[in-house]
Amino acid sequence: MKIRFATALLLAAAVLASCAGQNQVGVLTKPTPSVTNLPGHEYPLVNPDLSAVFRVDFPDAQAVSVGVGGKNYDMTKGEDGLWEVTTEPIVPGFHYYMLTVDGKRVPDPNTHQYFGSGYWGSGIEIPEAGVDYYLEKKVPHGEIRIGTYPSALTGTDRPYYAYLPPQYASEPDRRFPVLYLMHGAGEDETGWATQGNMRDIMDNLIAAGECEPMIIVCEHAVATLAGAQPAGGFNLFNFDAFEKVMVEESVPTFDAMFRTIPDREHRAICGLSLGGFQSYTIGLDHPELFGWIGGFSGSGRGPGDRRDSEMYPTSINDQYHLLYISIGTDEPAGMYQGIYDLHVALDSLGVNHVYYESPGTGHEWLTWRRSLHMFAPMLFR
Amino acid sequence: MKIRFATALLLAAAVLASCAGQNQVGVLTKPTPSVTNLPGHEYPLVNPDLSAVFRVDFPDAQAVSVGVGGKNYDMTKGEDGLWEVTTEPIVPGFHYYMLTVDGKRVPDPNTHQYFGSGYWGSGIEIPEAGVDYYLEKKVPHGEIRIGTYPSALTGTDRPYYAYLPPQYASEPDRRFPVLYLMHGAGEDETGWATQGNMRDIMDNLIAAGECEPMIIVCEHAVATLAGAQPAGGFNLFNFDAFEKVMVEESVPTFDAMFRTIPDREHRAICGLSLGGFQSYTIGLDHPELFGWIGGFSGSGRGPGDRRDSEMYPTSINDQYHLLYISIGTDEPAGMYQGIYDLHVALDSLGVNHVYYESPGTGHEWLTWRRSLHMFAPMLFR
Repeated sequence: MKIRFATALLLAAAVLASCAGQNQVGVLTKPTPSVTNLPGHEYPLVNPDLSAVFRVDFPDAQAVSVGVGGKNYDMTKGEDGLWEVTTEPIVPGFHYYMLTVDGKRVPDPNTHQYFGSGYWGSGIEIPEAGVDYYLEKKVPHGEIRIGTYPSALTGTDRPYYAYLPPQYASEPDRRFPVLYLMHGAGEDETGWATQGNMRDIMDNLIAAGECEPMIIVCEHAVATLAGAQPAGGFNLFNFDAFEKVMVEESVPTFDAMFRTIPDREHRAICGLSLGGFQSYTIGLDHPELFGWIGGFSGSGRGPGDRRDSEMYPTSINDQYHLLYISIGTDEPAGMYQGIYDLHVALDSLGVNHVYYESPGTGHEWLTWRRSLHMFAPMLFR
Repeated sequence: MKIRFATALLLAAAVLASCAGQNQVGVLTKPTPSVTNLPGHEYPLVNPDLSAVFRVDFPDAQAVSVGVGGKNYDMTKGEDGLWEVTTEPIVPGFHYYMLTVDGKRVPDPNTHQYFGSGYWGSGIEIPEAGVDYYLEKKVPHGEIRIGTYPSALTGTDRPYYAYLPPQYASEPDRRFPVLYLMHGAGEDETGWATQGNMRDIMDNLIAAGECEPMIIVCEHAVATLAGAQPAGGFNLFNFDAFEKVMVEESVPTFDAMFRTIPDREHRAICGLSLGGFQSYTIGLDHPELFGWIGGFSGSGRGPGDRRDSEMYPTSINDQYHLLYISIGTDEPAGMYQGIYDLHVALDSLGVNHVYYESPGTGHEWLTWRRSLHMFAPMLFR
């Protein structure tokens, strides 16, 4: 463990400082369509004070509301027959949202649709003043690769999305470290590449020299062994099947597929929410495979795991280069407490780790973008 | 022009025959959830007679219907409070569909969502008895690559989805021909890779030795030059901006990005609907770039183009290896007539071409999957 908690706080402060006040990025001077809107669609609009205006056409509806940023807003039918509301200022970042039309949740047809929490919903992006680390900039761009690999254990072809850094194309003989980056419950392998802005976060860090060029593998993190009942519900936190697939099939597959540096020093595992718990479970079970572990809004061997010296021995300090834990300060109280308590327990056990609180964000993508932006530069150095 | 119309009919017959009766693929023995359903969602169900059962929960709605396969079906609220209907048998293939709830079109929340016609909608896949050319099979798989390239002409980073055949990874010194495959109006560069099943169509053809391994580039086919008004509406059929981008920027970019064979003999252009018109316009304008041209449910230099010997000189016969035209027999009458008339005009002008009618299909993806499945094997041979 090279990075201590105090160091991490300094590093986090430096990262945030580097984003603040540098220019007028993310500062709106007039009501502006959300970047998530469909081509040619004006609404939802984001106002300079970060409130948003939603306007939708449900001519026969009796009641329409929009739930966004943790609040529900009743909409009013105007003289033009359209339902409209202006919200309070919304926390920056990407938010899933849905309308409720006569008691039923439906997406807003004005925006692109995003898959999360097991369904497709609308999305709105509230800009963050002075912050552009997750936006597309004029820097060399990496590539996302989509494919499947055959799995004998599951009897299926398993899907992946992978990020390859710009250097993967420009330096054809170079090999790269790998981060396995997991999605959350009800999401899939596409989330980090779409609403997570993984490519731009990594491209910008790498272009600034703040991060080692690395490969990122996002694979579908729920696996059912051939002949077994599908995972889900109460057994969602049983990672045995996926752990077996990952150790026996996926790591060897991606080491063969891409120009990786195929050793534990150059292989990290990390994820958000459910994927964070997976990363701790699988990462701590397999020091021979992984040298770096992270969990965003989800860390430890599962909710309510034993936090004693048997589960978290101080030998972790010698075995792993990094244990990273993060949580948004506005996440649901139980989630926050669980992660904070793990941080405290690890401290009291003398297990080195980095703990980060994302100020003002909930259990959603800005917490995870910030976490990746802080976590990735610590890897492989 | 190496392939004449009669040859093409024989080839089409052989392709269709090779798919028929080979096994029980696509034959349902019981009501089966559509493959487009979200994980754990039972409805919509497809019955063995290819009728479908839709069941949705809109508790406060007064009237719910579903529009699918060209017909609208009123749904009935059952004792369990859910709205349900069983349709007539539906034409095989992928269909976008929407519900109408109290007069407003909304997607069915039970399925994944697909982008087409300018909005996100639900999708249902009706299996096709004995046909598996567009399904994932146990063959070597190619990869989809997502990225952007910088465009000085538009001042933006332009998005692409590309298919790379399995041989691209397994034969690292080999170079490949390229097909530029265009989307339709209201779609984008993602369509062929998602509802088009491009990867599996190509993987299966290549594995069977029926098709040259090739790269396919799908890029966003609407371009606005820096400072100009966005394309759309009445100027949707003005391809000047995109043609300039394609000729000056995108072809050189992809020739540099991928291991292409960078000459006209190994470069084809093709598209569906609006993309078919683009392909004829750009392809016929640039014989120095393209040796092969196709249009699926859209061909010619734009709707109502002059079909005379000045526009379609017989020199085309010497300049191009292939002009391909296809249309579904159940497409809207005007669309069918326009494409059929082009075929007749080219015949009367003595311009060699391949004309294919997809039996029983409309202006949708089964017409285009069949067309790609027939068109790709003719290329680069």
